[in-house]
Amino acid sequence: MSKRMRPFGHTIPLDEARARIEDAIRPITRLENVTLDAAAGRVLADDIVAPADVPPFSRAAMDGYAVRAADTTGASRTAPCVLRSLGRAYTGVVSTTVVEAGTCLEIATGAPMPAGADAVVMVEETASDDDGEVRVLSPVQPRQHVGRQGADIERGHTVLRVGQVLTPSRLGALAAIGLADVPVYARPRVAIVSTGNEIVPPGQALRPGQIHDVNRFTLSAIVAAHGGVPVTSDAVPDTLDALSAAVDRCRGDADVLVFSGGSSVGERDLLLDVLRARGEVIFHGIAVKPGKPTAFGLVDGKPFFGLPGYPTSCLSNGYILLAPALRQLARLPAATPRSVRVPTGQRIVSLPGRYQFYTVRLVEGVALPAFKASGDITSMSNADGYIEIPTDVEIVEQGELVDVRLF
Amino acid sequence: MSKRMRPFGHTIPLDEARARIEDAIRPITRLENVTLDAAAGRVLADDIVAPADVPPFSRAAMDGYAVRAADTTGASRTAPCVLRSLGRAYTGVVSTTVVEAGTCLEIATGAPMPAGADAVVMVEETASDDDGEVRVLSPVQPRQHVGRQGADIERGHTVLRVGQVLTPSRLGALAAIGLADVPVYARPRVAIVSTGNEIVPPGQALRPGQIHDVNRFTLSAIVAAHGGVPVTSDAVPDTLDALSAAVDRCRGDADVLVFSGGSSVGERDLLLDVLRARGEVIFHGIAVKPGKPTAFGLVDGKPFFGLPGYPTSCLSNGYILLAPALRQLARLPAATPRSVRVPTGQRIVSLPGRYQFYTVRLVEGVALPAFKASGDITSMSNADGYIEIPTDVEIVEQGELVDVRLF
Repeated sequence: MSKRMRPFGHTIPLDEARARIEDAIRPITRLENVTLDAAAGRVLADDIVAPADVPPFSRAAMDGYAVRAADTTGASRTAPCVLRSLGRAYTGVVSTTVVEAGTCLEIATGAPMPAGADAVVMVEETASDDDGEVRVLSPVQPRQHVGRQGADIERGHTVLRVGQVLTPSRLGALAAIGLADVPVYARPRVAIVSTGNEIVPPGQALRPGQIHDVNRFTLSAIVAAHGGVPVTSDAVPDTLDALSAAVDRCRGDADVLVFSGGSSVGERDLLLDVLRARGEVIFHGIAVKPGKPTAFGLVDGKPFFGLPGYPTSCLSNGYILLAPALRQLARLPAATPRSVRVPTGQRIVSLPGRYQFYTVRLVEGVALPAFKASGDITSMSNADGYIEIPTDVEIVEQGELVDVRLF
Repeated sequence: MSKRMRPFGHTIPLDEARARIEDAIRPITRLENVTLDAAAGRVLADDIVAPADVPPFSRAAMDGYAVRAADTTGASRTAPCVLRSLGRAYTGVVSTTVVEAGTCLEIATGAPMPAGADAVVMVEETASDDDGEVRVLSPVQPRQHVGRQGADIERGHTVLRVGQVLTPSRLGALAAIGLADVPVYARPRVAIVSTGNEIVPPGQALRPGQIHDVNRFTLSAIVAAHGGVPVTSDAVPDTLDALSAAVDRCRGDADVLVFSGGSSVGERDLLLDVLRARGEVIFHGIAVKPGKPTAFGLVDGKPFFGLPGYPTSCLSNGYILLAPALRQLARLPAATPRSVRVPTGQRIVSLPGRYQFYTVRLVEGVALPAFKASGDITSMSNADGYIEIPTDVEIVEQGELVDVRLF
């Protein structure tokens, strides 16, 4: 056997690969300030304390009349109590009118309560003429239909806590307390590098023996969907010098390095040699199908993924290994998978001893195999999702219920 | 009763509101071309036909030796067949070597098959010395371990179809056939306008009677998450002139108009007056809690939402009405909700006759009420998700299982 050709060696189970990756990841500590309109989905980097009450004043919670509740005692449709209207309170300004006993002030939802009044009678519970008199048809209690100052958020209270993901309503809470920007954890920068002498970018004509780069685009989409910033470049040839230079170029700027390719035994060894020279190899080879020839290590303490070059192998490990690792690094909670539970449309035979990522199409409510070969991107692009077949399962019978994780 | 104060009138059921919105929406027809690295999640606007075979040449699917399969007949570990090695085939170039009977060529995964050879023997099934002879330890069939030209995608075949959403693997398929950019439907532009004299942007100090704009940020996040492009501006005062001018400013540029506020009866009427003058009102008032005072109509055939000003009312209708409408407009499939099924931690009493959007926290595996008041953003920002309580359900008993849709 030639020096460049060594057969593939020992593999570890998928669970162990996941555990070793999890152990190696250090959640990001770099911070940045972003404006609220760019903060959706970001992870809060500090507790947020309200600098003022929300609402900042007591306000009408209904359209109607600001009154002194005591004036309405016993009011009914047959025996309304009659109040003299002092005019109208508008939103956005504080009325200078004082509501004395026997008077009321027409008020719009959201307008500050005028001095003297302690409740609002809904407009539906009143009748009025143009003579300036308002008949109240039912009594109100003090504070009824009033949004108390600070009822939503009290000054000095913690509104949100470090680590929370900024959902739409949490952005709303930050807006409510007047924040224009917010401290969040930086999104991990993920260097994505395809390796291989034969790889050229889409849009460029192929010379004989060349193929287009696929992994750069599939991995970028995975990275962006799981809280990372993809940093891409053109493919790197399979030489020790070119691979070393690529690792050195990425290690300064990126938080994660994701190389794919070098899928041949010899080429894979080159990438491992670079990883050994620049950092450490944590594992190489996983008992998973597709995606066995996957390496993981650290360069300057930064996670380094060496994924297979074959598009389906690469992307399936993008889903099952890279995405969870990236979420951990980005301090995002584990993804809630979108999945459907359906019967299989035919018997599926899996490889013993390997965890299988098996792509399926959903046709008339059943899952049908979509997998062709690891080198075929259509094994995934023609699929609706995938099922995971554990190591100890060899047969999934026709009609058996499976959870299809949707792409 | 003064002219500006009219009580709230007739409401329609939520299902009818949804049906009327669905009837009114016309999926977007505007197209644009985007580069592959910006195309994730976009909707394909044309069928895509492969201009060439993928792979464009037959290639080795394993590391090993390119051989003539007939030469390996009967090979075994005890009686290997011996072939003369002609050298090595590399990825990225086409070897000029011809594999004649009795010879082989060392080959890396992905390298083009040399002329004469019709199969690959895996390196693990061979032994070689430095004498240029390779012993083959088991036979191969013709085409074994060969990735046939066009096996993944055949030239002239339709790779993807109009209307498909560009998942990572579909982007990979487009890259594989060499596309640098792709025709997609434009993302709907959604004008988001908060109305109210009292509303000022976060970051600006409040004068007495003023509050910060919340809906602009919550709605923008919803819009961006469901395929739209939020187009925001500062809040507009509650006057006929200002509202008319705002509608006119938005109608030219936006595909959808989303106004919130004017939550008071009089102010709501102003917005309705503008909608009537500029287009048509399709409904006003939904039997839903929170979020009753919601209007929907068309301006120049474009959907117009008049949402309540109260943050929780506004955002809950953002989830249950705006998001599905926007997905329909953007040609996206209905969202697959992320939800968990848990028991309620206490009895929940709902309002009869209204569909309730009820926010809950998840605490130790049970759903606890998080709702405070429609005006309180913390009704949602302190919640983990919501349950929907149908119109005809008044009581959800403690311990009853509910589906919590996670924010």
